[in-house]
Amino acid sequence: MFDMRSAIARKRDGRRLEAGDWASIVAGHQHGLVDDAQLAALLMACVWRGLDANETAALTRAMVGSGETLAAPAPNCVDKHSSGGVADSASLIVVPLVAACGIPVAKLSGRALGHTGGTLDKLEAIEGVRTDLSPERFAAQVRDVGCAIAAQSERLVPADKRIYGLRDRTSTVECLGLIASSIVSKKIAAGAPAFVFDVKVGRGSFLTKLEAARDLAAAMVELSESFGRKAVALVTDMNEPLGPAIGTGLEALAARDFLRGARGGDRRLRALCERLGTAMLAVGHAEGDLLATVERALATGAAYERFEKMLAAQGAAGDALEKLTPHKTLTPLRAERSGYLATVDPVALGLAARALVERSGSSAGIVVEKRIGEHVEAGDGLATVYGDPAAAPRIADAFAIEDAPPPERPLVYWETGSPGTLSAGGRTAARSSVEMR
Amino acid sequence: MFDMRSAIARKRDGRRLEAGDWASIVAGHQHGLVDDAQLAALLMACVWRGLDANETAALTRAMVGSGETLAAPAPNCVDKHSSGGVADSASLIVVPLVAACGIPVAKLSGRALGHTGGTLDKLEAIEGVRTDLSPERFAAQVRDVGCAIAAQSERLVPADKRIYGLRDRTSTVECLGLIASSIVSKKIAAGAPAFVFDVKVGRGSFLTKLEAARDLAAAMVELSESFGRKAVALVTDMNEPLGPAIGTGLEALAARDFLRGARGGDRRLRALCERLGTAMLAVGHAEGDLLATVERALATGAAYERFEKMLAAQGAAGDALEKLTPHKTLTPLRAERSGYLATVDPVALGLAARALVERSGSSAGIVVEKRIGEHVEAGDGLATVYGDPAAAPRIADAFAIEDAPPPERPLVYWETGSPGTLSAGGRTAARSSVEMR
Repeated sequence: MFDMRSAIARKRDGRRLEAGDWASIVAGHQHGLVDDAQLAALLMACVWRGLDANETAALTRAMVGSGETLAAPAPNCVDKHSSGGVADSASLIVVPLVAACGIPVAKLSGRALGHTGGTLDKLEAIEGVRTDLSPERFAAQVRDVGCAIAAQSERLVPADKRIYGLRDRTSTVECLGLIASSIVSKKIAAGAPAFVFDVKVGRGSFLTKLEAARDLAAAMVELSESFGRKAVALVTDMNEPLGPAIGTGLEALAARDFLRGARGGDRRLRALCERLGTAMLAVGHAEGDLLATVERALATGAAYERFEKMLAAQGAAGDALEKLTPHKTLTPLRAERSGYLATVDPVALGLAARALVERSGSSAGIVVEKRIGEHVEAGDGLATVYGDPAAAPRIADAFAIEDAPPPERPLVYWETGSPGTLSAGGRTAARSSVEMR
Repeated sequence: MFDMRSAIARKRDGRRLEAGDWASIVAGHQHGLVDDAQLAALLMACVWRGLDANETAALTRAMVGSGETLAAPAPNCVDKHSSGGVADSASLIVVPLVAACGIPVAKLSGRALGHTGGTLDKLEAIEGVRTDLSPERFAAQVRDVGCAIAAQSERLVPADKRIYGLRDRTSTVECLGLIASSIVSKKIAAGAPAFVFDVKVGRGSFLTKLEAARDLAAAMVELSESFGRKAVALVTDMNEPLGPAIGTGLEALAARDFLRGARGGDRRLRALCERLGTAMLAVGHAEGDLLATVERALATGAAYERFEKMLAAQGAAGDALEKLTPHKTLTPLRAERSGYLATVDPVALGLAARALVERSGSSAGIVVEKRIGEHVEAGDGLATVYGDPAAAPRIADAFAIEDAPPPERPLVYWETGSPGTLSAGGRTAARSSVEMR
């Protein structure tokens, strides 16, 4: 018979737990045979000792088994996951973009957590849009429209919600195996045959060390493959906000304008969307010059059209995208001195934008106008605060200007993927392994 | 405001918690602001990172503060604690022995735990004896009779019971600081100004490594001193049963016969009682040749008389000690071959004796007749099983005979104490630091 005390002691002493142990732990917790305190002690022992690949796979399988599993909405569809960043509206862009390139996208998303934004919250800033699609309606939309973005059904991996809640309140989130199993179990249960993981690293991510981010990326690809799925994982920069806009409505607006081709699009946001888009096409078995395919879908407006269709299918009225406007109260933040922009703190800005939205509505937030490394003159605009002006002075503290230019940072630090996915994708073939400075 | 998640994260990351944190943790758990799962995660982080002396003292202070504290029953009284062993009836012997030497003893005891015996259970095998004395009655008996052995009042350190229960079911017992604070907090709250700790080490103890036992001994002395109490700690052998008798009634009987001077007493049991007795006299500020004082109290029958008085004060009838007899069903265990006795497994014998008492009553158990290292001939008696004969074959497996004699083991590996306690005690002055082999 399974003995939880003995399982905790074994993990505590640095020994491996077997697949049967993980199954008993997850099922036991689900059915009240393992209590929260025992699971919490085990989770801390996991943070201490780590989980090896076999343990991570066994835990993931046990998590998947805690609820329903779905068939793939479409045979070659792709799901995408980001570990959470600031001003990251990439999902709103790449989902219709990849669908417009002919590969169906079945994207399950989450809510804002801490300083990081949530794709569902951004979508719901568009009038009428619903994200609580049933698994059946979600699959039908992927087949009919080519893409959908919805909340994870509570019928899938119910163990994850309980265990994640416990990890959150017991400070046991920081374990690579636990993180990987939490993310991948939900993707497996949702049925898509291929995934792209965007692992953020830097001061705005829960992962601040490149090595840990690479380990997580590699673990998620390996884990996906152990379930017979294809995957690519990119380790990307989150030392400053990804795009210019921060705040639910402002990010939806930025995605709309990006897809419309306004102002050519922000350089970093565009670069990441291209990398993610080609990776999604690659794991989805698209052929040809994937980057050219992506650029064409943007240039022709096909991606924007698909965006409109997706939103309409999820309840948006015809003029919902036109109604997206920034809050009317705005406060410019200006450089107090000349020099090079050295810091644009994504955590401070993410938290500030969230507070602005709570106080002044979904059209409030922050638009960042300068990038780290840019030279600014005293008086130049650094950012604009939309909504409650009282928030502005503290937001200004998120920017630091120095005499010397900061070292350059790549946008994509590293990429890894299932066999065939990296060589099939044109420029995505190159594994970059630039060290983060 | 205190944030438990942050406190867990700090301990997880190897940082110290402050005194205020420990106070908030213990009080928060007591009042439901910190839940079992959070405390369990913190406890596992404590097993991982350890507690330094300041943290252990702060936790101990917080534990003491969770309930009532008592004044010393007598100004120079002594309390004694054993970390738990097999066939260890030393408490039943040294408590009246030290009282007979003029130093009051206020001993709070526990129940059997796992394979180890409990002094309260052994006392209660004597007809009529009660151990549930109120703090007031306990103190009065210490003053009137010179000694008492009672259960810890639930009004003292209520946090310990809850936290220990949580540690037990979450496999977080094994942390020196947590062990020390659990033991010492109860001694502090009970009010005695001086303690003697008997830290068992070996296969029959929860501590199997000499270094860990020494660390715990040193930590408990330091911790006691930080509360203004005097203490001595001995690290003693528990690789075989301490005395000959195992089982509640048989151990009470062994203590009675030892105090009566029958058969001169078992060599190891006598040696340990002398070491513990002189240490208790030393921390109790007795003067003169302490070992001679102890031997005189045994030889004159003064210690036995005090034993009878203590039992009478706790409810024993006049003939209760005479009624102690071994169970009438007995099975001798004999050596199957000649050689040197190499193993007498205390865990197997402790568990077997406990099962025998449960099945056949408090007069059942095991009497071990040979010691590790003794030469035996095939057919020699090794032990006698009292009670259910069906238990005998498995009990025989606890003994192993080999061709070569095993290496000798000391009885006392190490001793440490408050200033003045080691030099005042005659032979206890010598700190032995023989390595355990």
